[in-house]
Amino acid sequence: MSENVYKTIELTGASTAGIEDAIQNAIAKASKTIHNMRWFQIIETRGSIEGDKVGKWQVTMKLGFTLNG
Amino acid sequence: MSENVYKTIELTGASTAGIEDAIQNAIAKASKTIHNMRWFQIIETRGSIEGDKVGKWQVTMKLGFTLNG
Amino acid sequence: MSENVYKTIELTGASTAGIEDAIQNAIAKASKTIHNMRWFQIIETRGSIEGDKVGKWQVTMKLGFTLNG
Amino acid sequence: MSENVYKTIELTGASTAGIEDAIQNAIAKASKTIHNMRWFQIIETRGSIEGDKVGKWQVTMKLGFTLNG
Amino acid sequence: MSENVYKTIELTGASTAGIEDAIQNAIAKASKTIHNMRWFQIIETRGSIEGDKVGKWQVTMKLGFTLNG
Amino acid sequence: MSENVYKTIELTGASTAGIEDAIQNAIAKASKTIHNMRWFQIIETRGSIEGDKVGKWQVTMKLGFTLNG
Amino acid sequence: MSENVYKTIELTGASTAGIEDAIQNAIAKASKTIHNMRWFQIIETRGSIEGDKVGKWQVTMKLGFTLNG
Amino acid sequence: MSENVYKTIELTGASTAGIEDAIQNAIAKASKTIHNMRWFQIIETRGSIEGDKVGKWQVTMKLGFTLNG
Amino acid sequence: MSENVYKTIELTGASTAGIEDAIQNAIAKASKTIHNMRWFQIIETRGSIEGDKVGKWQVTMKLGFTLNG
Amino acid sequence: MSENVYKTIELTGASTAGIEDAIQNAIAKASKTIHNMRWFQIIETRGSIEGDKVGKWQVTMKLGFTLNG
Amino acid sequence: MSENVYKTIELTGASTAGIEDAIQNAIAKASKTIHNMRWFQIIETRGSIEGDKVGKWQVTMKLGFTLNG
Amino acid sequence: MSENVYKTIELTGASTAGIEDAIQNAIAKASKTIHNMRWFQIIETRGSIEGDKVGKWQVTMKLGFTLNG
Repeated sequence: MSENVYKTIELTGASTAGIEDAIQNAIAKASKTIHNMRWFQIIETRGSIEGDKVGKWQVTMKLGFTLNG
Repeated sequence: MSENVYKTIELTGASTAGIEDAIQNAIAKASKTIHNMRWFQIIETRGSIEGDKVGKWQVTMKLGFTLNG
Repeated sequence: MSENVYKTIELTGASTAGIEDAIQNAIAKASKTIHNMRWFQIIETRGSIEGDKVGKWQVTMKLGFTLNG
Repeated sequence: MSENVYKTIELTGASTAGIEDAIQNAIAKASKTIHNMRWFQIIETRGSIEGDKVGKWQVTMKLGFTLNG
Repeated sequence: MSENVYKTIELTGASTAGIEDAIQNAIAKASKTIHNMRWFQIIETRGSIEGDKVGKWQVTMKLGFTLNG
Repeated sequence: MSENVYKTIELTGASTAGIEDAIQNAIAKASKTIHNMRWFQIIETRGSIEGDKVGKWQVTMKLGFTLNG
Repeated sequence: MSENVYKTIELTGASTAGIEDAIQNAIAKASKTIHNMRWFQIIETRGSIEGDKVGKWQVTMKLGFTLNG
Repeated sequence: MSENVYKTIELTGASTAGIEDAIQNAIAKASKTIHNMRWFQIIETRGSIEGDKVGKWQVTMKLGFTLNG
Repeated sequence: MSENVYKTIELTGASTAGIEDAIQNAIAKASKTIHNMRWFQIIETRGSIEGDKVGKWQVTMKLGFTLNG
Repeated sequence: MSENVYKTIELTGASTAGIEDAIQNAIAKASKTIHNMRWFQIIETRGSIEGDKVGKWQVTMKLGFTLNG
Repeated sequence: MSENVYKTIELTGASTAGIEDAIQNAIAKASKTIHNMRWFQIIETRGSIEGDKVGKWQVTMKLGFTLNG
Repeated sequence: MSENVYKTIELTGASTAGIEDAIQNAIAKASKTIHNMRWFQIIETRGSIEGDKVGKWQVTMKLGFTLNG
């Protein structure tokens, strides 16, 4: 990590496929407006239940990127 | 919750009237620049003291909204 | 507190009126099947947002009662 | 979320297949006696080790449902 | 905040009226012996239950004041 | 731990004798209605004070058992 | 709990005999200057080691009493 | 669990494949020098981001084994 | 603190000189795009190690500022 | 505490007799390979249940010792 | 640590010079009324921001001393 | 971070000079037996008090290194 300054934001991604896919969805969406993303950290994993199955997996993560990179 | 991606920010609202009003003030202010706000969660409730009374109630909350909804 | 044994459950009450009312709603509902309720403790306060206002206040609490009192 | 009251219980599901499957197992089992399940939240992910591999994945979650829905 | 030194104590106020009133009660009582109180922060909100209603609201707070101000 | 599903509940036991005895009291009481109890974990240890001595020891624990084992 | 105001302080008691005795020592000492003590809660349990044995048990607790009761 | 003594260490495993695989990698590596491993618990799940995708999944876990088994 | 609304963001500053300097670096960088900054709070202090010395000090902080001043 | 460097490890001791005895067992076992042990701190207290009684008390502690003292 | 009883209080010191100096300021001030101070522990490090620089460093600490030494 | 496996240990360094120096002391000592150290994270900052001044600064940190590099 250089002497750069990093900013961390909090996002929640969702997916019917599973935990990893919910994270990928959030990163893909964020990449449209944020460049120089560097890392993420899972904060919370939740999901909706429909009948007797998981409906959507919902993963909240912190996402760090270089500020004015 | 759909397969959308959500972003969470942290705000502190203040009020002389009480806890609920401090939250409403922060949401009203945020609504001028953020659309598609969906939920909030109280993180911390503080206040200033003036003499022997509460001066301002100060409530810090997380506020979630649909990203590029 | 006597040598009784206590059980704690977790409930979420909701209200359009405010935090205290959401708690009262949950206690009133629980009182239909649980007797000897003794105390509650707020765990989390959230809410939905509709437009630029709080929609429903949602308060999650622990609720303790005497077991087989 | 309506003005209903919700109850949250804590379950641990297990699976040899992975984290998502352990959660599905717990929800499927709970659905036999609980109706109106709405959401879950992962509290802890553990597992047993057999030799140099994971034996069982064990996921503890909170599970929320409408009370007397 | 100046180069003063501050001390923080922990108090629990109670009220039949609600959360804000329990805090006001504790601050009013503390003001009889402590001067230069500056801020408070809620640590825990609990209450007793009598029948199907909240009996007393009990709010534990940290309370900061200038030391030898 | 097999592929069973476990449920965890929260109990508070009390005793004038000490911490271990308060836990044993809660487990003995719970055993009248719950079978297949497997483990406990202490969450909080409190007590009442009478004069200059501990009155009752009050231990809150999580208690896990096999669901429909 | 009445509409009184309570104050909580933090003490550490020590004993060569065990956890319960360390708590009793702290309460006995505090009772010389504080009246109306009502409850305690264990915050941390530590100890010194001498050779291959526990030397002193050191228990830090919160201790609540009625303010100007 | 017998009257044995257990030791817990903290490891971080990495994988391009996903969360479960990162854990398996850490356990496989640890098994070369540690015998009698019994359980693990996830402490933190992070990852690097390369462009608009997860690069490496990095899972930090506690890993328990029988001491001098 | 007036009835204004405050926003809090999370930044990580780095420095080879030490903890205070890493914070100053982050604040200096943030001041180019954010006005009305009011306070910061350290969340985490980490660092890289090069050989037998600290390489870069990395301090993550929350940083609060008046919203739309 | 001198300018020495200390290392902390995490151990779990077990006993059928109680909490203090489980800690003594872990310290006695550790003393066979570690010298200069200085302090411990309880992290978690659990236990197995056999029928309507505690089977084994299991206490997880941090244990500190002088490094290359 | 002898069989004495210790009390812990919470103070916030401030300084324009840095973190260590803010702590020294609080300890120097406290020493005017408290004797037998033994240790401190940092609880929180904050600061005010003036323009693009840290104004005052504000460090909140627990401070322990022998009771009735 | 490559597909390597990392181990984290917990150390406490001490110094009369300040926080950064206590960390450097611990890293220097650890470097005599551990190679491939990569990062540290501060867990707790404490100190002894002698009279009205800090005696020794004591910083507890996690320290990560490549396992069997």
